[in-house]
Amino acid sequence: MTQPGKAAPARGKTVRDYIRTIVDFPHEGILFRDVTTLFADPRGFRMAIDQLLHPYAGTRIDKVVGLEARGFILGGAVAHQLSCGFVPIRKKGKLPGQTISQAYTLEYGEAVVEVHDDAIQPGEKVLLVDDLLATGGTAEAGIKLIERLGGEIVGCAFVVDLPDLGGRKKLEAMGMEVHALCAFEGL
Amino acid sequence: MTQPGKAAPARGKTVRDYIRTIVDFPHEGILFRDVTTLFADPRGFRMAIDQLLHPYAGTRIDKVVGLEARGFILGGAVAHQLSCGFVPIRKKGKLPGQTISQAYTLEYGEAVVEVHDDAIQPGEKVLLVDDLLATGGTAEAGIKLIERLGGEIVGCAFVVDLPDLGGRKKLEAMGMEVHALCAFEGL
Repeated sequence: MTQPGKAAPARGKTVRDYIRTIVDFPHEGILFRDVTTLFADPRGFRMAIDQLLHPYAGTRIDKVVGLEARGFILGGAVAHQLSCGFVPIRKKGKLPGQTISQAYTLEYGEAVVEVHDDAIQPGEKVLLVDDLLATGGTAEAGIKLIERLGGEIVGCAFVVDLPDLGGRKKLEAMGMEVHALCAFEGL
Repeated sequence: MTQPGKAAPARGKTVRDYIRTIVDFPHEGILFRDVTTLFADPRGFRMAIDQLLHPYAGTRIDKVVGLEARGFILGGAVAHQLSCGFVPIRKKGKLPGQTISQAYTLEYGEAVVEVHDDAIQPGEKVLLVDDLLATGGTAEAGIKLIERLGGEIVGCAFVVDLPDLGGRKKLEAMGMEVHALCAFEGL
C-alpha cells in the first residue's frame, strides 16, 4: 500500500520516464529528448541495456556497432554484456587507421561517417546501436558501411524513436529490423 | 604443449598486445595508440573492462564518468557491470541541460569540457574512466568538474598510460589514485 506523501517506487518507472525533454535545444522549436538522465540513473541505465538486448536473446552477435557519440555509451555496455567486440562509427577524421566513409544529408548540408576497414569481417553478425532514431540519416550511413564490409545486420536498436521524422520507415525499407524502447510524437 | 606452426593461444595475449600503433596520426611524428583493435576483439574488450574494475572490487561507486568520446565506450561498459549510473563529460555545447564548464590547455590553444550540473550529487562516489592518459589535461578538467559538483573521486582508470607525457604525475599531485592497464614509453 502506498503511503500518502511517499514518492512512487522507482521500480514503477519506465525507460521513457527517465528521459528529460529540453525545450529549444540545439535551436528554437526543437524538443530535445535527453537520455543523459536515463544513463545517470542506475535502475534506468540497467533497464535500458536489458531492454535493448531482449529481442536478441539466443541470436548470434559478433560485433556491436555504436554511432558517435551517445551510441558509444550504449554500445559499450551492450557489447560487454554480450561478451562480443565493439566497433565505433565516427565522424570523418577521427579514426586513425584505414577507413571507408559514407556521406549522408543533414538538414543543411552533408556529413560523413567512417569505420575502420578491418573492423568487421565478411559474414559477421552485427547489432547497430544508437540512442535516438530521428530521420535515420546517420543510421542509414552506418548500415551502408557495415554492409560494405560484408557484415550481416541482425538488428538496429535505439532507446528513443521519433516516428514522425520517418527514420523507422527508412530503415525498414532497407530491410532492417528496428527495435526502440519508447517513442515520442512530434519533432 | 604448443605445436610448431600453430599461433599462440589468444588467452596468452595481454591488453597491450591488442592495441595497434598508427604512425603519424593525427600528425607527423606521433605514434597513435589505437584502442579500437582492443575494443573490437571480444576477449580483449572483456579483459580490459575486467582489469579496469579490478582495483575497485568492494569499493562503493555511485557514478562512472566517461570522457568524450572513447571514454564513453569504456564508461558505458564499466557502469553497466557495476549497475551504477553513467555520466558523460563532453566538449562544449554538446550537453542540452544546465552545465558547468572547465577550460584546459591544449598543445595549441584551449578547449572546454562540460558536465550537467545535476548529474552528480554531493557525496557521491565517482570513478573517472578514459582510454588514454597523456598530458592529463582533459582528465584534470574532468576531475575539477566532478569535485565542483561535490563528487568524491575514488579513482581514475585508463587503458593506456603514456608516462613520458606526465599525466599520471599531474593527477597524482592532485591526490588522485591512477590506475592504467598498460604503458607505452615515448610520445
